[in-house]
Amino acid sequence: MRTIRVNASKAYDVLVGAGLLDRAGGLIKAAAGGDLAVVVTDDIVAGLYLDRLINALTDAGYKTCVFEVENGESSKNTQNYIKLLNFLAEHGVTRSDIVVALGGGVVGDLAGFAAATYMRGVPYVQIPTTLLAAVDSSVGGKTAIDLPVGKNLAGAFYQPEIVICDHDLLQTLSERVFADGMAEVIKYGMIADPELFRMTDLEEIITRCVTIKRDVVCEDEFETGVRKLLNFGHTVGHAVEKLSNYAISHGEAVAIGMAVETRAAVSEGFCDETCLNELIETLKRNQLSFESPYGTEELFIAAGSDKKRNGDTITLIFPQEIGKCVLRDVKVSDLKRLIACGTG
Amino acid sequence: MRTIRVNASKAYDVLVGAGLLDRAGGLIKAAAGGDLAVVVTDDIVAGLYLDRLINALTDAGYKTCVFEVENGESSKNTQNYIKLLNFLAEHGVTRSDIVVALGGGVVGDLAGFAAATYMRGVPYVQIPTTLLAAVDSSVGGKTAIDLPVGKNLAGAFYQPEIVICDHDLLQTLSERVFADGMAEVIKYGMIADPELFRMTDLEEIITRCVTIKRDVVCEDEFETGVRKLLNFGHTVGHAVEKLSNYAISHGEAVAIGMAVETRAAVSEGFCDETCLNELIETLKRNQLSFESPYGTEELFIAAGSDKKRNGDTITLIFPQEIGKCVLRDVKVSDLKRLIACGTG
Repeated sequence: MRTIRVNASKAYDVLVGAGLLDRAGGLIKAAAGGDLAVVVTDDIVAGLYLDRLINALTDAGYKTCVFEVENGESSKNTQNYIKLLNFLAEHGVTRSDIVVALGGGVVGDLAGFAAATYMRGVPYVQIPTTLLAAVDSSVGGKTAIDLPVGKNLAGAFYQPEIVICDHDLLQTLSERVFADGMAEVIKYGMIADPELFRMTDLEEIITRCVTIKRDVVCEDEFETGVRKLLNFGHTVGHAVEKLSNYAISHGEAVAIGMAVETRAAVSEGFCDETCLNELIETLKRNQLSFESPYGTEELFIAAGSDKKRNGDTITLIFPQEIGKCVLRDVKVSDLKRLIACGTG
Repeated sequence: MRTIRVNASKAYDVLVGAGLLDRAGGLIKAAAGGDLAVVVTDDIVAGLYLDRLINALTDAGYKTCVFEVENGESSKNTQNYIKLLNFLAEHGVTRSDIVVALGGGVVGDLAGFAAATYMRGVPYVQIPTTLLAAVDSSVGGKTAIDLPVGKNLAGAFYQPEIVICDHDLLQTLSERVFADGMAEVIKYGMIADPELFRMTDLEEIITRCVTIKRDVVCEDEFETGVRKLLNFGHTVGHAVEKLSNYAISHGEAVAIGMAVETRAAVSEGFCDETCLNELIETLKRNQLSFESPYGTEELFIAAGSDKKRNGDTITLIFPQEIGKCVLRDVKVSDLKRLIACGTG
């Protein structure tokens, strides 16, 4: 088992290891205490892992109750958020109880936002069951729900008491959902560590990604500077997701975004062709796309409405070599030309 | 005009003075910047002051739009919260725009919670239009909405960019709503400053109360210790509110709560009868009640489910003299006896 200490506004540990699910009760009790554990999960994860978690929690002395949503992004909506708040209130949850998110990013974001806001904050714990959630949402404290107008438009910065990554749980992931997480792993490789392109041990990969994200986020908890590096591939990636009406998953879209943004970086002279080629080889090896199904015009319009936009400029992340990227503010009016280079 | 600097997790100013509403545009621009100002208000306040605020904002170069709710506590609900989030999204509000709450506590809490969570936080400004909001919600960063199970059960700690208290606006308050705020003023007198029992100038009263709350809150932003002093009268007060199904207003209930808790303090030997008598005289002079319409048993059950309860104990605030209170943890099992003394 590896332990990554995260010193955010509140300090907590991310544990990575095999077989942690069955030890979760004791680990959570030691980190967070509490009497009642409210488990938030989805129907698919519940079928696979809920009984084991409930047993582990019960053995550690917790009373438990379960709030279950349907698997899928559409569950991260305002209705489920309000339902979950009411569920917590109806079960008499207090600030000395805990909310446990067992699932991927959707469950983690929904449960985290409810925990952040119920009674202005009750303790919560994350048990990610996807690679994407393990490497992406376990550090950074971002919680959110979607609004009809756009994804993640309501939320809070809120830190968990502990994150328990049992990578055995990732064995039941479909190839597509696993690849979704690998896109983010490749992103960490691009922005910070070329070794990630070659690692094969899952515990090591997750530990490395979480450590990179920890280092970046602790330097910049509220996303005003260096944390923007984590958005590499996301300006175009978000545009692709949006244009596909989210039929293209986050990781798949980020893979395309990284390829487009790296091509633009090559054409701008930030990096050379070998960097682009190595990225594309790695994406291929992981069954990820690297060509945008959308044209320049569409991508530009969708990217121009990005949440990260600041008035007339937008911050792009350009790779210089594998493992090193730089931030560049570009005028929204230049963005179209760059996207054209990237898709061309 | 008086300026009280609040050094919370974010620093901001509370301005108190006559005629500030018409200068609000420039004051807000200087403190918060931004292009679009979303004004959140209620129908009654809108009829009285909205035009003047819109003019002031427009003169300062803001584009404006207005989200209006019905006057009254029942507007602080989940539906209005989600409606407001969607309103912000549909109007394309970004982190460089601002939310302006023009109203009492209900409007401030609703707008503040939406501002705290829309895009994980957009700047917001408070213009309190009741005495209660001016002295109570303008400092402390508590925002909230009600759930069907109870008041203020969802919310966030979130600091405004600036608070503008134009005490001219309080002249249109009904006697009852004004008295509601005076109950909190008397509370500040009880916990920190006997002078408040004698002051008559509104600017001075508000400034003094905001300063006391600022000092207490800055010492204890997340309510783990001395901030509990601000709950004087609130354990029994909340029970009275709840039992009346909120027909008895917050201030009226706190007035009753202070009288009951002070009677209990006298019977426990914490303070002498003259303190109780002076409190009751002051409540009377402000048209506030000091006798509970509910009996010991009812009050005990309602108070025992208080959010401030920690397992088997509850923290009560006992006056020692006018201007000085102490915290005492009492067993929930002792609470009934104390309430019986307080109502007897």
